[in-house]
Amino acid sequence: MDNLKHWLEEKLNALNGASPQKQVKGYTRLSYTKEEKAAHQAFISIATELGLKTSQDEAGNQWAIWEVAASLPTIAFGSHLDTVNQGGGYDGTAGVLCALAAVKQVMDKNILPKRNIAIICFASEESARFGISTIGSKAITGRFSIDEYAEIKDVHGITLPEAIKQFGLDWERVPQAEIPRNRLESFVELHIEQRMELETKELDIGIVHGIACPVRLQIKAKGMANHTGTTPMENRQDALVALAPLIAYVEQQAMQLNRTSKHPIVATVSTVKVTPNAMNVIPGKVEMGIDIRSVDDEKKRKLASMIASFCKELASERNISIEVHPFVDTDSVLLDYHMQQELSDICTELGLRHCTMNSGAGHDVMNMAAKWPSGLIFIPCKDGISHHPQEYASISALANGTQVLARFIERAGDKDEN
Amino acid sequence: MDNLKHWLEEKLNALNGASPQKQVKGYTRLSYTKEEKAAHQAFISIATELGLKTSQDEAGNQWAIWEVAASLPTIAFGSHLDTVNQGGGYDGTAGVLCALAAVKQVMDKNILPKRNIAIICFASEESARFGISTIGSKAITGRFSIDEYAEIKDVHGITLPEAIKQFGLDWERVPQAEIPRNRLESFVELHIEQRMELETKELDIGIVHGIACPVRLQIKAKGMANHTGTTPMENRQDALVALAPLIAYVEQQAMQLNRTSKHPIVATVSTVKVTPNAMNVIPGKVEMGIDIRSVDDEKKRKLASMIASFCKELASERNISIEVHPFVDTDSVLLDYHMQQELSDICTELGLRHCTMNSGAGHDVMNMAAKWPSGLIFIPCKDGISHHPQEYASISALANGTQVLARFIERAGDKDEN
Repeated sequence: MDNLKHWLEEKLNALNGASPQKQVKGYTRLSYTKEEKAAHQAFISIATELGLKTSQDEAGNQWAIWEVAASLPTIAFGSHLDTVNQGGGYDGTAGVLCALAAVKQVMDKNILPKRNIAIICFASEESARFGISTIGSKAITGRFSIDEYAEIKDVHGITLPEAIKQFGLDWERVPQAEIPRNRLESFVELHIEQRMELETKELDIGIVHGIACPVRLQIKAKGMANHTGTTPMENRQDALVALAPLIAYVEQQAMQLNRTSKHPIVATVSTVKVTPNAMNVIPGKVEMGIDIRSVDDEKKRKLASMIASFCKELASERNISIEVHPFVDTDSVLLDYHMQQELSDICTELGLRHCTMNSGAGHDVMNMAAKWPSGLIFIPCKDGISHHPQEYASISALANGTQVLARFIERAGDKDEN
Repeated sequence: MDNLKHWLEEKLNALNGASPQKQVKGYTRLSYTKEEKAAHQAFISIATELGLKTSQDEAGNQWAIWEVAASLPTIAFGSHLDTVNQGGGYDGTAGVLCALAAVKQVMDKNILPKRNIAIICFASEESARFGISTIGSKAITGRFSIDEYAEIKDVHGITLPEAIKQFGLDWERVPQAEIPRNRLESFVELHIEQRMELETKELDIGIVHGIACPVRLQIKAKGMANHTGTTPMENRQDALVALAPLIAYVEQQAMQLNRTSKHPIVATVSTVKVTPNAMNVIPGKVEMGIDIRSVDDEKKRKLASMIASFCKELASERNISIEVHPFVDTDSVLLDYHMQQELSDICTELGLRHCTMNSGAGHDVMNMAAKWPSGLIFIPCKDGISHHPQEYASISALANGTQVLARFIERAGDKDEN
């Protein structure tokens, strides 16, 4: 176990390029950047060390395969190595690391599994750069749309096709990353919990039942830019003043909805862009991005519709135009029941304290679950902090997760008919 | 007069690089960029055509001199050619254009003035890029501080010294642009009004009495970035939700103060920066810039202090930190009485309808007035729109302004003792 912990620590630092606890500013490995690529390179080194065969697909997903025998089915594990701006060293990385460690554990015990093993580093899971998430797993599952995504830009005006080209890929060929259903048998992702439930209840593993996928709205208010010094207060069409009440509204209504229902909802005005954003110009345009999540799909759509109505009121009060664009509207994902059962049995066998829970965050497994029986397990992270330099999961928590995945590999195929 | 109007139209387009009325996106000639430099080049061409001697000083101000006789005092005119993001073709440009046109008028009449004439294109008047305004005239009047400005950055992280270097200047030598008091006798700036008073009252010229200089605050709220999907509503330190009430407060309090006093105040939350500004991350930091103006200095400082108190309340309500930095606090400027009288007499002589008014916007003349008897005249602009592609002043309005400046040149020295 001490060997495992030592290995986890060493490879955690290698995947991150440095020890996460020493990074005051966290990590910034945005989608399809050289920073994401460098992390993939670190993954390739570790996988190669373990004797795995690595390859990159057309969407930039990095694969590592332990081919036990060509005739056997393949079970897959994985997560991602990209981060938000100034994120932590565990969100995504923990899942990739523990999958590698699980393979090492099984190899070290000289056990030959009854399945081939695939570990996938999904490209560009975070939406921080392009506003869309899980690009790599979308491509693998045939959910990547050339037409729909071609115009998406980052804050510097770089389009997704340009970024993908800079990553060394061919935009037109990205959909070819899709693989047929018979290529894999199942998929399991490990991730940090990003909440405090496991920590508070002193549990080791969370087995995820449902994933609360987001509804996302983009709100565009258009007033009139004018000089701050020369335009009388009563003669303005200030888009920021007009739209500002929405920020409090989103919080208040989400909290209100939580008073009357069992599945909680969370809603956040997470992005703001003011144009021209100059000290001496009245805001002429304001864009806000709103992220709404609940496993209760009806409730999140209700809040989206309340927000649209509220924006209409604001627009008419202030005589400006406000547009509401729902640009993401994803049904929540329920994970495979048998997979949950199997993961729960493994935890019991290993003596790990566990419970069933929902996920407030989206993960690559959302896409994988549409095509293959899939599972998601959580390990605790400190104070529930995530997407932040202070994100932290202990080596013990990573080791527990590794044990679950290793045992999953060892048990795979046990129910095969002989 | 038709010749003059034709010339004004041609040179207006030349200074702007294109006709302002055909620019749907306006002009973006930010401080110390190649776009500002290109406008200075257009100025040099026109000045050279008129036989003026041009030179650039250490701060990037572009000078054009009509040296009538080395022994004569020099009277100066001028304004700036930089713009805000997507600004118009008249703010600043009108003043430079009319000064050139006035010289041309006097030359065309074969009048030899009793003063040398200087026309100054002040560098970087707008605060749109670096958050500080009137950099060029600050340097000329000895108000440019190497120490204070060295760290100022634009949104791309380019520092003011770097931008000045890219403009072809030497950062350390910028203060050498300062000129002694005896180098000039007086200064007059012409500018578009940027309000609707002249238009509404059907007047030709506004003669400015006082300039309402800004108090500017930078507000920094620091909460805690965390995942939008996994962080319960009641467990957040959302810096945007915390600071949002300030936007309405600033507007409401300014309007409230206007009910009880004769000098109006205007106040604007004009810039917002959310960090990390990603769809799936709760805003961890928010910065807002507030611009407050009134010729009543006491009133604007009172509002600044009310805002600071309100921020304290917000910080304690939400348990986040909010800092208030006053980074500009300038006394209002009253312009020279005799200059106002002279300009008023000239308008009367020319049959131009005029009145005395205050300026809500700052101008280069603010700095010049501290060193030389200075004047500021306004010409009407359509609907008061400024800092916007729809900014517009008619050629007739520009011609009226030109007549005033030309007559000012002709009358200069009339009261000299012989």
